[in-house]
Amino acid sequence: MLNYILLVFVPIALVLELLHAPGVWIFIVSALALLPLASWMGRATEELAARTGSTVGGLLNATFGNAAELIIAGVALAAGKLEVVKASITGSILSNLLLVLGLSIFLGGLRFNTQRFNANSANIMATLLVLSMVAFLLPAFFDLAERTYFRVDPTLPDLDFSHAAAIVLVLVYLANIWFSLRTHRDLVSGRDETHLEDHPATWSVPVSIGVLAAATVGVAVMAEFLVGSLEAATSVLGLSEFFVGIILIPLVGNAAEHFAAIGFAIKNKMDLAVQIAIGSALQIALLVAPLLILLGWIIGRPMNLVFQNPLELAALAASIIATNAVVRDGETNWLEGFLLLGVYVLLGFAFFFTPR
Amino acid sequence: MLNYILLVFVPIALVLELLHAPGVWIFIVSALALLPLASWMGRATEELAARTGSTVGGLLNATFGNAAELIIAGVALAAGKLEVVKASITGSILSNLLLVLGLSIFLGGLRFNTQRFNANSANIMATLLVLSMVAFLLPAFFDLAERTYFRVDPTLPDLDFSHAAAIVLVLVYLANIWFSLRTHRDLVSGRDETHLEDHPATWSVPVSIGVLAAATVGVAVMAEFLVGSLEAATSVLGLSEFFVGIILIPLVGNAAEHFAAIGFAIKNKMDLAVQIAIGSALQIALLVAPLLILLGWIIGRPMNLVFQNPLELAALAASIIATNAVVRDGETNWLEGFLLLGVYVLLGFAFFFTPR
Amino acid sequence: MLNYILLVFVPIALVLELLHAPGVWIFIVSALALLPLASWMGRATEELAARTGSTVGGLLNATFGNAAELIIAGVALAAGKLEVVKASITGSILSNLLLVLGLSIFLGGLRFNTQRFNANSANIMATLLVLSMVAFLLPAFFDLAERTYFRVDPTLPDLDFSHAAAIVLVLVYLANIWFSLRTHRDLVSGRDETHLEDHPATWSVPVSIGVLAAATVGVAVMAEFLVGSLEAATSVLGLSEFFVGIILIPLVGNAAEHFAAIGFAIKNKMDLAVQIAIGSALQIALLVAPLLILLGWIIGRPMNLVFQNPLELAALAASIIATNAVVRDGETNWLEGFLLLGVYVLLGFAFFFTPR
Repeated sequence: MLNYILLVFVPIALVLELLHAPGVWIFIVSALALLPLASWMGRATEELAARTGSTVGGLLNATFGNAAELIIAGVALAAGKLEVVKASITGSILSNLLLVLGLSIFLGGLRFNTQRFNANSANIMATLLVLSMVAFLLPAFFDLAERTYFRVDPTLPDLDFSHAAAIVLVLVYLANIWFSLRTHRDLVSGRDETHLEDHPATWSVPVSIGVLAAATVGVAVMAEFLVGSLEAATSVLGLSEFFVGIILIPLVGNAAEHFAAIGFAIKNKMDLAVQIAIGSALQIALLVAPLLILLGWIIGRPMNLVFQNPLELAALAASIIATNAVVRDGETNWLEGFLLLGVYVLLGFAFFFTPR
Repeated sequence: MLNYILLVFVPIALVLELLHAPGVWIFIVSALALLPLASWMGRATEELAARTGSTVGGLLNATFGNAAELIIAGVALAAGKLEVVKASITGSILSNLLLVLGLSIFLGGLRFNTQRFNANSANIMATLLVLSMVAFLLPAFFDLAERTYFRVDPTLPDLDFSHAAAIVLVLVYLANIWFSLRTHRDLVSGRDETHLEDHPATWSVPVSIGVLAAATVGVAVMAEFLVGSLEAATSVLGLSEFFVGIILIPLVGNAAEHFAAIGFAIKNKMDLAVQIAIGSALQIALLVAPLLILLGWIIGRPMNLVFQNPLELAALAASIIATNAVVRDGETNWLEGFLLLGVYVLLGFAFFFTPR
Repeated sequence: MLNYILLVFVPIALVLELLHAPGVWIFIVSALALLPLASWMGRATEELAARTGSTVGGLLNATFGNAAELIIAGVALAAGKLEVVKASITGSILSNLLLVLGLSIFLGGLRFNTQRFNANSANIMATLLVLSMVAFLLPAFFDLAERTYFRVDPTLPDLDFSHAAAIVLVLVYLANIWFSLRTHRDLVSGRDETHLEDHPATWSVPVSIGVLAAATVGVAVMAEFLVGSLEAATSVLGLSEFFVGIILIPLVGNAAEHFAAIGFAIKNKMDLAVQIAIGSALQIALLVAPLLILLGWIIGRPMNLVFQNPLELAALAASIIATNAVVRDGETNWLEGFLLLGVYVLLGFAFFFTPR
């Protein structure tokens, strides 16, 4: 229902843009319009996946799951807003691991005393997360070493190393897909089946493709409006671009994941809730981030993978440590969700208090 | 027995103070006098807890367990010794996680080949510890980001953020109490019962309250003497105030926990030993530290939660990583205790070698 | 077979050295000659161990397992190449935890869907690894605190603290030996028996001692050639000495571990593969590194245990975090091995891109 109603913001955004309305209004309305569009992209992808059989379908889901975030970040990259792009990558990982997972565990835990899920499968995802994050954070330490230890200008080696890291991350992503769709499908089959039960295909393939195309165009246009009105909006709202990138954009881009994961959690299907939250974070780190690096390389907007802000680094490390501590034993309760949310709120304060 | 004998240092400290004896003597004698006083405070709290039923009793234990440390640190705060206060917070966490837990595991492990405890309950405590510590350490990274990345004066935002962090930490503390006394009492009931068996109520309520009041006054007075003689004592003993705060004060303040935890460990009641050590560290991080921040706010001694000394940060992180590695599997042996002690000794060397 | 053939490089190296051939050739040939010599040292140690009964034998294996690396690093230390020595310590830990373990898990995982090993024993090794690494990395944070927080010259306290840390590390090493050969032999006996089955004693004691002595002399001579030709070789090959120390020397020194661990992994004896990789890393951190510190103290080449390069620190932390994530659950699959290798390759890029 909400997915239909919120679409009304799409024409409103178009009208405001044509009328050259104040940037802050365009910003707010296009952000609201992105919510249903991102959700429809996800829905169409799942419909296509349900029609195409589990291997191709799994591939589709794995590749387009964060397409909306990729488009928004890509538009920001093309506009030269590198810090916003990087902040939105970090923020998307944080929001998946702390906010989506935290809300799911907290709300699910209010209804069920202890919620259990497959510890084996959760362990593998947590291990993937740890190893991906190590690879993801290395460029920052590389840069730190360049600047403070070797005392050289880190610009060029940073770029070279970021390109190398992006390629390694994409290889890890492909290996992960091969693993979950080919060699160790049994490990994840249980949850996929449950997943499919919840989402039987109801659309024909042409309808799915049509909806996907329309929603993608819509996301791209709204992302243009959002990025175009960013400066005007931040100065009126008194927020830093960093805060918009690290908190607000991920809230919009991950809205669909929020609803899906929380919905599963309060039905006591924690396997799916955990899989959505961690899987989406993994996809940002292993696919979206390196694709943005490579995209920047191609379109001549060289962007590195270096997170220089120590708070951003600490936040990423903290979110992974926290997720690991919570999911490793295959059991959750409301307090664990509350703690994840507490960490997220604290990070939100920190990002809010940072100077603009 | 020792608890009675050591009380003799209370009048000695009073006499020395009246005679304006050299500071170093007042310092040593008041530190020795604090040992039995802190222990009597703990004993009286437990007696009250045993009389008042398990919910109120649990609350009492959870709130007053580290009251002696809070009083000592509060006196130091009022005297403007902010670095000593912060060092004593860090030191108390280190001493609980490395020294109390290490000695318990080591000495228990010398008598029993492998000691087992409820891995489930230990996992939840370890998870709490990790998430609390993330929240506890964030202000330091916030400060680092302010100074080295944004290059702004961090004084004001540090204070604002520390106040926000203190409030979040207290909320987490309250949630934790609600969790263990209300929604998940079953998870901890087993150990509570064992606990009560060991400590049946033998005092009447008025006696308990009387002892608690007397011991509290005693602790407050001795803490005044200790803090007042700090400068004289450190210059004579050749120790830094930082070393006194991070090693000596926690040794005095945690003496009761030491004896209790080790006593349980050598009776092979590792659940209780682990619970005392980790629970006490949690209480310092979630209650004592934020209360001191808020107290400083109120009495006009603004103190932040920022640990700028990289060694302090590393020590806190190390103690949590080490504790997690040891307790996660629900089994301990003497070597694990030996290693925890090794880390503590090494930290002690590091703090000793730091310049005064 | 290969162990015999590669010995041909020993006389070639001698001839090249006598002819004063270009340094780069001496460097390459002596590196190749070290491969079989290190392997023969290991073989002779195992033969001796099989003859002397399991306690003395275990002690021999535990003490001489990384003797080749110790000799190479000792020669570099005597030549004053402190940065190469430190880099080779770091590199040896990285290569054991990421490359040896990663290749074993990856290649083993290609043949077996899921490989299982004793999670209990792996947990204890992982815990030892974490605690040892905490002790191992503390001097770096001590130095950081000296320089950036206390703003004093760290040279002298660094040395004092490094000596203290070296002594603590050796004590932990002795405790670990006591643990595995005396008090908790049962915990490791299963794997030792399998180990002995694979390696029954075939040499007499005098032959073993003779081979050990000859191989040791060979290693020492080749190490002299390698270190002597280091500068000439690095300038011709365009590599930094740091890269040689952190990547190439450990490849040579750990070649025997590589073959042994991979051999066990593809026979599905993961207990042994994991034990070799982690055990060897532990030995570097707890025995080889402190012995080098103490050796430097004695021969007047004062070396501290401080790793100032942030990338080196991050790499060590990353390798331990990664290993822990992978082995804790007692199960591995090819993807986990692939990820460990991915982290190693990424580190290799980083070390390669660092300025010389």
